[in-house]
Amino acid sequence: MKRIYSLIQEWKEKNLLLPIWMEDRKIRLVDQHLLPLEYEVYTLSEVSALAQAIRSMAIRGSGAIGTAGAYGMLLAASNANGDKNKVIAAAKELKGTRPTAINLMKTVDELLKATEQVSGNDLEAVMEEKVCDILERQLSYEMRLGEFGAECIEDGDTILTHCHSGALAGSGYGGRALSVIRKAFEQGKKIHVYTSETRPYLQGARITAYELEKFGIPHTLITDGMSGYLMRLGKIQKVVVGSDRVAGNGDLINKVGTYMHALAAKENGIPFYAATSSHTIDFELEQGMDIKVEFRPEREVTHLRGHLITVPGTHALYPSFDVTPNELIAGIITEYGVIRPEYKINLHHINSEEEVMICH
Amino acid sequence: MKRIYSLIQEWKEKNLLLPIWMEDRKIRLVDQHLLPLEYEVYTLSEVSALAQAIRSMAIRGSGAIGTAGAYGMLLAASNANGDKNKVIAAAKELKGTRPTAINLMKTVDELLKATEQVSGNDLEAVMEEKVCDILERQLSYEMRLGEFGAECIEDGDTILTHCHSGALAGSGYGGRALSVIRKAFEQGKKIHVYTSETRPYLQGARITAYELEKFGIPHTLITDGMSGYLMRLGKIQKVVVGSDRVAGNGDLINKVGTYMHALAAKENGIPFYAATSSHTIDFELEQGMDIKVEFRPEREVTHLRGHLITVPGTHALYPSFDVTPNELIAGIITEYGVIRPEYKINLHHINSEEEVMICH
Repeated sequence: MKRIYSLIQEWKEKNLLLPIWMEDRKIRLVDQHLLPLEYEVYTLSEVSALAQAIRSMAIRGSGAIGTAGAYGMLLAASNANGDKNKVIAAAKELKGTRPTAINLMKTVDELLKATEQVSGNDLEAVMEEKVCDILERQLSYEMRLGEFGAECIEDGDTILTHCHSGALAGSGYGGRALSVIRKAFEQGKKIHVYTSETRPYLQGARITAYELEKFGIPHTLITDGMSGYLMRLGKIQKVVVGSDRVAGNGDLINKVGTYMHALAAKENGIPFYAATSSHTIDFELEQGMDIKVEFRPEREVTHLRGHLITVPGTHALYPSFDVTPNELIAGIITEYGVIRPEYKINLHHINSEEEVMICH
Repeated sequence: MKRIYSLIQEWKEKNLLLPIWMEDRKIRLVDQHLLPLEYEVYTLSEVSALAQAIRSMAIRGSGAIGTAGAYGMLLAASNANGDKNKVIAAAKELKGTRPTAINLMKTVDELLKATEQVSGNDLEAVMEEKVCDILERQLSYEMRLGEFGAECIEDGDTILTHCHSGALAGSGYGGRALSVIRKAFEQGKKIHVYTSETRPYLQGARITAYELEKFGIPHTLITDGMSGYLMRLGKIQKVVVGSDRVAGNGDLINKVGTYMHALAAKENGIPFYAATSSHTIDFELEQGMDIKVEFRPEREVTHLRGHLITVPGTHALYPSFDVTPNELIAGIITEYGVIRPEYKINLHHINSEEEVMICH
């Protein structure tokens, strides 16, 4: 496993924040449940343990889950002693963890296909090469997205972001929204970030604040209801968020709360950008409101870290995502460039490129 | 103290939720810090203890603070043994607790004036009469506001409210926003309430949910960032919030987060109402953005009930209030009726009535 260890070494030296990596033929994975109050790294020597970590969301974010799938396949090949059936079984187990994670499916399928014609003896070596290729490709897309997006950021900007769309959800550079922000910062632009805490799970207060601190980017925590007033005060110049899905007409599906930031941005003449990898653009979804958003258990709203915050027995609602209409979005930042309205037309320019369909 | 005890008895039987009352010549006060997880009632036999409770915000909300001032003056008169200087000193101490609480100032001054010409022997009896008059007047205003506002609510409506503008912040019926909601409910309208939790202090999750449960009004807790999407889904028909200040042009100053609910309401064609007593209309404030909003300590955002929720050392911002522009407001509900735009003209119709200037 010479190539992958040297890659990992190189990435760590480049100050990447890896959500998952390999060491001594075992997987190492940062538990994102505990961040930032505790930093715990799990050591996983079996694919089933990795599958459990994905299911429990100890690792999360579509880019990071795809990466986990790649490492899982390499671990399976390494443990298989040349028995390809073990790799096929591992692929099935990994794909079953998060059935809607398109990135995970595509990565695992690509790796499975690449080892179909390989003899048992070559299994680990071939898998390693292919996994390295995929990881390098993912990282290069993440950095390209950051470069395109950074062009939208000006020296002196204060940028609002919501939820977590960062390194630990991606390949380690900055995921989507934070790749844009990190790249602008590395270009020497004097920027400041407002991270909106993102109730009920506090991803903004916990993980985004953690990454911004790691990258040395000046930042301030706010609650989700404060962005509008801060915009009225002239304290915010740009909004950059990630994306869970983009509809064919450019409507954005992202963590609940995004829509209200976008409304406030529009009202105050502030450009709102969604950073996304092209594979999350869903051309079969005609418009955002056609999606059936998952409503999660009410306990996630009524309790915070196990403590009740309201009257016992109070009911609550928790739509995981909301839908931001395309007319509120100034640009959709992808690894192919920044797509501008009219999205219904311009998003299809990406679709016509064959490569897009296999990228993460 | 026959009259005041019988009034208190009558109010409790009417299912009023009193933030403060008198028993055995002592003040009894619900600690709003602990609600709803604990219900603790303090017994206060000295004005200095009440002053401390006001300063610490164990009692809060402009109506309730005014009521506290009235009870404080009665306690002072009762403890004075005919020495009027003690009442004058108590008035000074009470007014010093929250220097910006206009309602407290006016109430205490009115009571001080009423006892100026009174002999020491009559002090307690005269004070009791005057305090009872004020408490009855405050309650009647609260209920009138509720009646006017309830006309804006239709059978079947789901109503969003933000922060706490309820009984424990007022005279016990429902304060401002919750008087509107409670009256509509008592009229037999089938309504449902979404209470937005109101980070960082969670007044919506804690106190509003507590009162809605006490009044038997069906309700659901949401986080502050969810209202916009629930509006897009057609789940909200009205928004009713309280008010910390209304500018002369109708701009609303209220708990931070209000502006973003109002923006979402406008965008989705949902009427947004501010409930306020006429004394919070500040004609000297030409427009809302002229106000200097208090920024509170960052620890109130970074910590929740003493627990750190972000990376140690993270900076935060906490503007207590925000400003909702008048064009987002469908009506301002007062004890004199529902004021409609053009506010700059129509609010002055209230101003021309002498009585308004002495109301709580």
